[in-house]
Amino acid sequence: MRTVEINMQRSAANPLVAPQDIVPSYPDWEVLGAFNAGVIRHQGEIIMLIRVAERPLQHDPDHMLVPVLNLERGAGEHAEVMKTVKVSRSDASYDFSDPRVIRDQSGNTVYLTSISHLRVARSKDGQRFTVDERPTIVPEGELESWGIEDPRITAIDGVCYIAYSAISERGVCVGLLTTTDFERFTREGVMLAPTNKDVVLFPEKINGKYYMLHRPVPEGIGHPEMWIAQSPDLIHWGSHAFLMGLSETDARIGAGCVPIKTEAGWLILYHGADKAHRYYMAAALLDPNEPGKVIARLADPIMIPEADYEVNGFFGQVIFACGAVVEGDAVTMYYGAADDSMGSAQFSLSKLLGLLRAEMK
Amino acid sequence: MRTVEINMQRSAANPLVAPQDIVPSYPDWEVLGAFNAGVIRHQGEIIMLIRVAERPLQHDPDHMLVPVLNLERGAGEHAEVMKTVKVSRSDASYDFSDPRVIRDQSGNTVYLTSISHLRVARSKDGQRFTVDERPTIVPEGELESWGIEDPRITAIDGVCYIAYSAISERGVCVGLLTTTDFERFTREGVMLAPTNKDVVLFPEKINGKYYMLHRPVPEGIGHPEMWIAQSPDLIHWGSHAFLMGLSETDARIGAGCVPIKTEAGWLILYHGADKAHRYYMAAALLDPNEPGKVIARLADPIMIPEADYEVNGFFGQVIFACGAVVEGDAVTMYYGAADDSMGSAQFSLSKLLGLLRAEMK
Repeated sequence: MRTVEINMQRSAANPLVAPQDIVPSYPDWEVLGAFNAGVIRHQGEIIMLIRVAERPLQHDPDHMLVPVLNLERGAGEHAEVMKTVKVSRSDASYDFSDPRVIRDQSGNTVYLTSISHLRVARSKDGQRFTVDERPTIVPEGELESWGIEDPRITAIDGVCYIAYSAISERGVCVGLLTTTDFERFTREGVMLAPTNKDVVLFPEKINGKYYMLHRPVPEGIGHPEMWIAQSPDLIHWGSHAFLMGLSETDARIGAGCVPIKTEAGWLILYHGADKAHRYYMAAALLDPNEPGKVIARLADPIMIPEADYEVNGFFGQVIFACGAVVEGDAVTMYYGAADDSMGSAQFSLSKLLGLLRAEMK
Repeated sequence: MRTVEINMQRSAANPLVAPQDIVPSYPDWEVLGAFNAGVIRHQGEIIMLIRVAERPLQHDPDHMLVPVLNLERGAGEHAEVMKTVKVSRSDASYDFSDPRVIRDQSGNTVYLTSISHLRVARSKDGQRFTVDERPTIVPEGELESWGIEDPRITAIDGVCYIAYSAISERGVCVGLLTTTDFERFTREGVMLAPTNKDVVLFPEKINGKYYMLHRPVPEGIGHPEMWIAQSPDLIHWGSHAFLMGLSETDARIGAGCVPIKTEAGWLILYHGADKAHRYYMAAALLDPNEPGKVIARLADPIMIPEADYEVNGFFGQVIFACGAVVEGDAVTMYYGAADDSMGSAQFSLSKLLGLLRAEMK
């Protein structure tokens, strides 16, 4: 796998945020990952809404301590938001081979090994971030009992819309939060039923409708590919259509950053993964007036795991961007590295658009 | 498995419609099944919108002839709507063990062995049906290239809304058609992305919102269970919530007939299937003002495959109802039998509600 030549510049400050920069939710917990952050420029700051994955410290060699939401308590003070389930490591009905999940023998996931919440980090320069000491948004309710993950933030008419994965034993579905200040948040309900994730909302109406990209994971027939849907109100979604499929080497693809409006069309920076679970970032261009039409797609990735913090980590060989900031011709893409930390990398918008335009001819 | 005692009366005329009653789309094709019909009382008639599954006659012992939509042609005259793909029976990469599908060795479905369209049948008495000689609604477009299946019809304010499964290599998703006369139909787009099916729309707004029941099939985490969603316009859907899960013996459940409004709540007649793919019908009651709340559920089915035409057929041991007609205290439930033919059975509404009320105590 080789990338297109856009001279992608990783930040010298990478990783920008790492697990050791995060205060865990409880004194006897550890942070496994600070990654896959939604990113937005907001009132003079760059805000990252980081996915923080954590778990109880593992002292018992015979059991794995699995964190889940304490549903009996419901929403409220954080002190008792979580609880711990003890899973015997010698139970032959469980498969512990994937560090992220515990599966049963039929391959179904029965627990995650960590639980994720979302935490705000702020920066003036987009490189040095101050991370809140407490969780900003914690899971809430039955459909978030295994955590909330991978937020993408879109500002529309002064409101920030946060699409995120809600994980529970019922499946992986897509929730929506709104905020204007990143202090108070409103849950707007589940936009998409399981199995779905990797939702990005377009930043404006197109022909009178809001649009999203989403990534269902079909069961039995079909593949994890990108779809597009429309909405009158950002809450209710329909007119689902297939957008873009796997390349020959892809096992899955899905939206990454919020679509960037350019004179050539909507630029989408999306992720793909091969069968060995190596995640990379790629680029395509959607028609400016009909975003359901792919007008250009680069065959090669724009960025693949190469730096040490991308190749090695909690789950290595992963670059997974959920947000980008554009300033003039410079696009700064923020990405989760190895399900572990946050990095950024910069490239020239016009250079990438030049490569995409060449694909249109 | 035993049923609750509601004295379910199968019609003496069963099967009401069988494959031999259907003229195939082409002279050299055969009808495999006429089943899983949506049913509604409309302008003095009982209308069934039957799922007709058919395929080319199989003359070649070395190849299976698989029917798919002819996408090059698109919508239009029926003569060239379908085309045929030849699949070698000796190709070891295919698994032919399920009569309904061809799978690859990783268990993914790569073809259906038949393609379904929808066909109107009309009756004055709800028992003797006259089936149209030509297909009423044929598949259209990429997301229906493997057929359209299992319609449910809900009349709302004089318009009949038909939720149906749209099948293609992209997955199983849920489309919506509208009609006022069962002659001209309008496609209203895809309501739910894959994998989802078994959608029934409620016949009226509740607290200012339209509602549907749906049945995602999650991948990796979760099970095929019933969810509920809300809409302002019947086209765009949100506020998805988990409704009702599997019993200990269920492998899957899903909505069946359109919810019936009763003074006790919304009566839902839904299907379940055990791990041996034996499909039965069951009943539950939803809160009249908050249909996301299950207020009663019978532990035992109301009907299981027992008659010969239910036990034996294209895919045996199946009762699968997509429609019911209520007249006074009599509910006539219409159901697909063995993925093969249509039957009906009648029971007393008050008797079933009595059993459900007993569960509430």
